[in-house]
Amino acid sequence: MDWETLLAPYKQAVDELKVKFRGIREQSQKYNRHSPVEFVTGRVKPVNSILNKAWQKNILPENLENELQDLAGLRIMCQFTEDISTMISLLRNRTDFEIVEERDYITHKKPSGYRSYHVVIKYPVQTLEGERKILVEVQIRTLAMNFWATIEHSINYKYQGQIPENIQLRLQRAAEAAFRLDEEMSQIKGEIQEAQRLFNERAEDAADVVSDN
Amino acid sequence: MDWETLLAPYKQAVDELKVKFRGIREQSQKYNRHSPVEFVTGRVKPVNSILNKAWQKNILPENLENELQDLAGLRIMCQFTEDISTMISLLRNRTDFEIVEERDYITHKKPSGYRSYHVVIKYPVQTLEGERKILVEVQIRTLAMNFWATIEHSINYKYQGQIPENIQLRLQRAAEAAFRLDEEMSQIKGEIQEAQRLFNERAEDAADVVSDN
Amino acid sequence: MDWETLLAPYKQAVDELKVKFRGIREQSQKYNRHSPVEFVTGRVKPVNSILNKAWQKNILPENLENELQDLAGLRIMCQFTEDISTMISLLRNRTDFEIVEERDYITHKKPSGYRSYHVVIKYPVQTLEGERKILVEVQIRTLAMNFWATIEHSINYKYQGQIPENIQLRLQRAAEAAFRLDEEMSQIKGEIQEAQRLFNERAEDAADVVSDN
Amino acid sequence: MDWETLLAPYKQAVDELKVKFRGIREQSQKYNRHSPVEFVTGRVKPVNSILNKAWQKNILPENLENELQDLAGLRIMCQFTEDISTMISLLRNRTDFEIVEERDYITHKKPSGYRSYHVVIKYPVQTLEGERKILVEVQIRTLAMNFWATIEHSINYKYQGQIPENIQLRLQRAAEAAFRLDEEMSQIKGEIQEAQRLFNERAEDAADVVSDN
Repeated sequence: MDWETLLAPYKQAVDELKVKFRGIREQSQKYNRHSPVEFVTGRVKPVNSILNKAWQKNILPENLENELQDLAGLRIMCQFTEDISTMISLLRNRTDFEIVEERDYITHKKPSGYRSYHVVIKYPVQTLEGERKILVEVQIRTLAMNFWATIEHSINYKYQGQIPENIQLRLQRAAEAAFRLDEEMSQIKGEIQEAQRLFNERAEDAADVVSDN
Repeated sequence: MDWETLLAPYKQAVDELKVKFRGIREQSQKYNRHSPVEFVTGRVKPVNSILNKAWQKNILPENLENELQDLAGLRIMCQFTEDISTMISLLRNRTDFEIVEERDYITHKKPSGYRSYHVVIKYPVQTLEGERKILVEVQIRTLAMNFWATIEHSINYKYQGQIPENIQLRLQRAAEAAFRLDEEMSQIKGEIQEAQRLFNERAEDAADVVSDN
Repeated sequence: MDWETLLAPYKQAVDELKVKFRGIREQSQKYNRHSPVEFVTGRVKPVNSILNKAWQKNILPENLENELQDLAGLRIMCQFTEDISTMISLLRNRTDFEIVEERDYITHKKPSGYRSYHVVIKYPVQTLEGERKILVEVQIRTLAMNFWATIEHSINYKYQGQIPENIQLRLQRAAEAAFRLDEEMSQIKGEIQEAQRLFNERAEDAADVVSDN
Repeated sequence: MDWETLLAPYKQAVDELKVKFRGIREQSQKYNRHSPVEFVTGRVKPVNSILNKAWQKNILPENLENELQDLAGLRIMCQFTEDISTMISLLRNRTDFEIVEERDYITHKKPSGYRSYHVVIKYPVQTLEGERKILVEVQIRTLAMNFWATIEHSINYKYQGQIPENIQLRLQRAAEAAFRLDEEMSQIKGEIQEAQRLFNERAEDAADVVSDN
């Protein structure tokens, strides 16, 4: 299999979607709104990871592009848990791709402690031979979820999936600490918004009084 | 007028199209083909240039986005004159935007000596409020055309359009030198391709002989 | 004051140091070592922030560059608390700048809950008029410290330093949650390293046995 | 030989020098001066090119880093021929590296028609193990010189150095066309500067008259 050629449109899709999702942040800043996007990363799955997964899941070469939905992967990091649903609405409203599947590992976190929201999209790429639609996996998470997931991934990799029980326990405690951090942050966000709402209402009252004169 | 807000989708379009056109180069390299794209630049028109042009052309604010087709501008530089028509075909085949107008200043160069191919496209941008279609001007030229145009532009700017006759003459001589360079280069490209064709034909003959055995 | 001209070398310093610190990550990966650098950001202080601070601290224009040590600012984010001291050693060993001051807000966190390690360096920039040495502030923190600091900064900005008590309390709880996350992560890092050490020792024993034959 | 490890500091040097030389352009623009730098490219020599050259020149592995001066290569493109000497002076004045050798293929062009100015520098890189000084080759050329050189390089590569005579002839004609373009451009630059000088002198005369009152 010629991997360079096979993966070229996936590389192109990752490059384009990085610019598109980062654009949401830039636009929010220009409109003076809170940005649901903190930062964006993306990657094409390395060839040896593809081979490894295809072999473990017994996927035939001709089914590769349909069965491995994360050959192209984007990750959107959010500041607050609430930003995740804002982000999902924005994705659903776009007309430059089609949503194929959603997996909610936030309401239903994985046993390991993993939390994240996955959206699989069908994205049209312009190749030298014309348009092609390919699958791309978009993961949406808070910074704390991402922080934990990054570390869990490298530990998992180190122990080849056979994480010793005491480290599994530690990982779960860290996952809880990450979860609590998100909770505390959400509370602050709520308080600020509440404070602002009160402040704005009073300001409107004041404006009314002034315009009465 | 809030320029930041008005120009935000144009900025986004420029960022996305830069990645898309640069992708043509990357894909060509991966497929071991000659790339029609040498490099790509892009810019949003600076606010004072917009004001200047709108004022000179007597454009009303409400018509700005329709009458100034180059608020967003992309420039594609090609190695050989022949690459320009390859590039035009590629643009015509894409499904991610619609071509609105083409202006051929290569067959019909401007009196100043300016040569370039302009394509105006209608490009859909995803904003926080949904999809918007905006106009973008794409200029396609060889390196030598671009080289000359860059210098003509800065001279024109310096003399505010009133270029002294002797400098106009010099500019025309430079334009001719740039044109001759493109011609010489095309000749070499032709010779190489001719040489390769001959070589491949003979190789096929040889292969035939071998497979006869 | 011509800010563009004044700040040009600071912009240059930020660009160069971003590449230099990101290089530490790339080098670590090439040598298969854990990178003390997770990611790097940088900025030149916006002009209105400079004016505001200069005015509040009563700094004379001629003393601006000596008294505001953060006109150029770099931020290095680390995965584990332990990476911060690795990073400090690396900075101390470099020969491309000189360390002028260090402030340890990790051992001595600020009353607000702020934790970070600040290093002020004197960095030589090559300008069109020759070499100039300028001050640059480098902040080193874990992802959790950064996460908290970002939010505290925007809240502080919103309330102009007069944060209501209940929100101050919330912020402190969030700071504690961030701290606990760092602690849990360090524990895991420790366990992994411990596990690896044990594993390597046994492997060496095994190797010994083999080489005995 | 572990190429990744060997070439890591060269990669780092290329990244840093790209930012440094591009900074010359940015600084010139901020000071409203003509920039001697039009654009900058850089690369680490690919491993197979290294092997090929080392083998042809019979270089021993232990002498590789001293005898191949272009493991790291930077290329600075200028708009006018005159910019090249401005650029050389700027390089000579810098304190962040040391010049080891200069080769002037502009006064003494190669038989092929190649024109360019080469400067070999000794550049200090900070590695994880401390400072290391490495050799870097910096090539300075006009856009037209670069245009020609790029094409000559690919033709040379195609014919493995055995370019047929008729194509060699064509290449020389193209080199002359590129040279003439540079000449014409220089003339224009000269005229503009001459015109500006005259204009400024008259303006000063006028100012004198005014201040006489």
